[in-house]
Amino acid sequence: LLEQEQVQLPSHYSELNAGQWARILEGLTNDIRLKLWPHIDASLNSAILVELHEDTLQQFLAVLPQKSIEKTVCSSTQVETVEILEALPQKTARRIVKKLSPEAQSQVKVSFSYKEDQVGRYANQQVYTIDENENVAEVIAEIKSGENTLESSNFIVVNKDMHFIGEISINELLNAKNKEKIAELVNTSDSTLNDLQLLLDASNLVKESQRNYLPVISNDGRFVGIFSIQDALDVFQVFYEAQVAHMGNVSDEDLFSPVLLSSRRRAVWLGINLITAFLASIVIGVFDKVLLEVVALAVLMPIVASMGGITGSQSLTLTIRGLATGQISKGNLSVLRNKEFLVALINSLFWALLVAFVCHYWFENATLALILAVSIVINMLVASLSGVYIPVVLEKFGVDPAIAGSVILTTVTDVVGFFVFLGGATLIFLS
Amino acid sequence: LLEQEQVQLPSHYSELNAGQWARILEGLTNDIRLKLWPHIDASLNSAILVELHEDTLQQFLAVLPQKSIEKTVCSSTQVETVEILEALPQKTARRIVKKLSPEAQSQVKVSFSYKEDQVGRYANQQVYTIDENENVAEVIAEIKSGENTLESSNFIVVNKDMHFIGEISINELLNAKNKEKIAELVNTSDSTLNDLQLLLDASNLVKESQRNYLPVISNDGRFVGIFSIQDALDVFQVFYEAQVAHMGNVSDEDLFSPVLLSSRRRAVWLGINLITAFLASIVIGVFDKVLLEVVALAVLMPIVASMGGITGSQSLTLTIRGLATGQISKGNLSVLRNKEFLVALINSLFWALLVAFVCHYWFENATLALILAVSIVINMLVASLSGVYIPVVLEKFGVDPAIAGSVILTTVTDVVGFFVFLGGATLIFLS
Repeated sequence: LLEQEQVQLPSHYSELNAGQWARILEGLTNDIRLKLWPHIDASLNSAILVELHEDTLQQFLAVLPQKSIEKTVCSSTQVETVEILEALPQKTARRIVKKLSPEAQSQVKVSFSYKEDQVGRYANQQVYTIDENENVAEVIAEIKSGENTLESSNFIVVNKDMHFIGEISINELLNAKNKEKIAELVNTSDSTLNDLQLLLDASNLVKESQRNYLPVISNDGRFVGIFSIQDALDVFQVFYEAQVAHMGNVSDEDLFSPVLLSSRRRAVWLGINLITAFLASIVIGVFDKVLLEVVALAVLMPIVASMGGITGSQSLTLTIRGLATGQISKGNLSVLRNKEFLVALINSLFWALLVAFVCHYWFENATLALILAVSIVINMLVASLSGVYIPVVLEKFGVDPAIAGSVILTTVTDVVGFFVFLGGATLIFLS
Repeated sequence: LLEQEQVQLPSHYSELNAGQWARILEGLTNDIRLKLWPHIDASLNSAILVELHEDTLQQFLAVLPQKSIEKTVCSSTQVETVEILEALPQKTARRIVKKLSPEAQSQVKVSFSYKEDQVGRYANQQVYTIDENENVAEVIAEIKSGENTLESSNFIVVNKDMHFIGEISINELLNAKNKEKIAELVNTSDSTLNDLQLLLDASNLVKESQRNYLPVISNDGRFVGIFSIQDALDVFQVFYEAQVAHMGNVSDEDLFSPVLLSSRRRAVWLGINLITAFLASIVIGVFDKVLLEVVALAVLMPIVASMGGITGSQSLTLTIRGLATGQISKGNLSVLRNKEFLVALINSLFWALLVAFVCHYWFENATLALILAVSIVINMLVASLSGVYIPVVLEKFGVDPAIAGSVILTTVTDVVGFFVFLGGATLIFLS
């Protein structure tokens, strides 16, 4: 099957689940994805699509025939439908919604009444709920019928207006008398999510609750759906992969995205970083006279900049994580800064001494070695403070420190490094 | 409560769950953690400890009184016990194991018969199982008794030797006749984990299965325990946080770890990166004559190195992700390389032209601008190929590309950048 394309499918390919198929598709170019698609079990189609990375999904949907997308969406769950529609152009999405059943249409409408970073949009509405006015015997009969998927051994209880009342466990149901009303047995619970909550916050709450899901409730008490630990895991994965991508100066892009699209996206990162490089060049240009006098300065200056860069990125990484988890507050920011400063001081003294020794041996110039050592210490100390304060300030201005932090930091460590080193040399060698 | 220490606890602190307490403790220094600890609901103690980051857990346990650790471990679940023991010095751990109940001791013994990266060690053995020889009425009575925590609406079925037979759902149990044997109703399943499987692989399998847990089975069919989606989430979080930390040139360390410990750990990263900086300096040193002649070279050389560095890190980041998810194989490596090369070619031509234009305007020297542009193009092309091949080669030699990749790449882009730019200038200006 498709072996002529040199695609190596695992021998047990007929038993692959949706997640495994998604990983395989992501490793293929769009052409081969298209050829492979009709050979995959159609019942997995929608699950495979939503397992794809966002960028891959968009690019694959762009080449997949309309008919094929329509068919897939019509047999999708509500959450899958929402995720597929999100990746389609608005016009196509609207056309496909019209083909859905009236029930599915109203579910999708509820989902899209929320913003894309609100948990309400991704709450699973297709969940088995128990009416508080039913009695135990009726509920057990319903469960027996087996038509409803059971997410766990706990069931959601609602009133006749679909307002959330609480939960009840299978043990409690089995132990109760047949005639007892659910309303008398239900456990109320504070462990719920608000439908307007941010996706990442909601995911953290589900994780911390140690439960398999939390019910999502609107401000007026209406039960919207459930948000599961699997959903939370997906959110975390997207979050972390974006962070890793940003640290690597790239967007979270498809492995085989089209060359021109990829070039355009990466050009943005290159352009931003070029500004840093130009600023550094300007600083060096200011001190061109001393460079003509002492060429060793040009040889050694990258060391000053890079030692500052590494020190700064260490403090920056720790601070960004602390801010993301809410562990850094006004109360402990100064404690963190003092610690980072002390760590940088110890390391800068140690490494500056070593580098100065090597420099003295290399260029046989004690003054140069001294200027180098002092510059390294100053740049590393400034870097540690910048690493703490840049993300804090960025967050205050509503900018994500994980995206903008490292570029600004590199600018600071390059500019300060070159300025102190070449400026110091100018003062001493040219006066 | 403790307000004199300026610790800002949320007003609803008595309702905090373990995960929330862990985040708060991580934001405090060890001294204040110790003072706060006795005020926290003791029933949460073990759950809080295992929610801490590894480094924080180790440092907090190092100052927590032995008695307090003992008490906590004795009321922990088996998985919690394993994680706490792992963070203790071997001697202390062995002493504490002796205080456990015989049952807990044997569970811990099973866990520690596995290596720390094998899923068997973290399989939850304290799970409710059904004996295949029981009949339906007996099982329902057991479930009713409510003494067993029910992880889901599915139950694990084992034989009398604790070998895994399959699973059965609550619907099936309720629909079956009272006298029917479980052995006749059980669903066999291929969705299991092998106890020797690597933790990260096992976590991926649980995620892809879309289930709340998978049973962990030994090679001879024995049921070891279950590995849940919550466990998988923890594994992913540790994995990603380590990756982010490495990209920031820092270990995954406690926000408030002791200054000396922190200095020592970071010194390692600084030292490794210093080698890169020295190599770059040596290359520059080789061309000191041309630098004396054309000082503008010193001003412009950081631009060549940094454009290569960014391009390389883009290809590197994508390749490392592709390797980690198993999406890059022999079959598509050349496709990826060609794409990355083309992307780099397009971007290098664009940016080299722009930079050359600025350079020409700045230094009024067309030859210099031409050398600069050619150097940027060459360095970006080499960088893109290095970004693809460095992680592939590292992985072949069993080295984690996420740790070593970026240092090696920076060395390549610095050395190649300076060599091509200054070497080219030497050829043209000094001959």
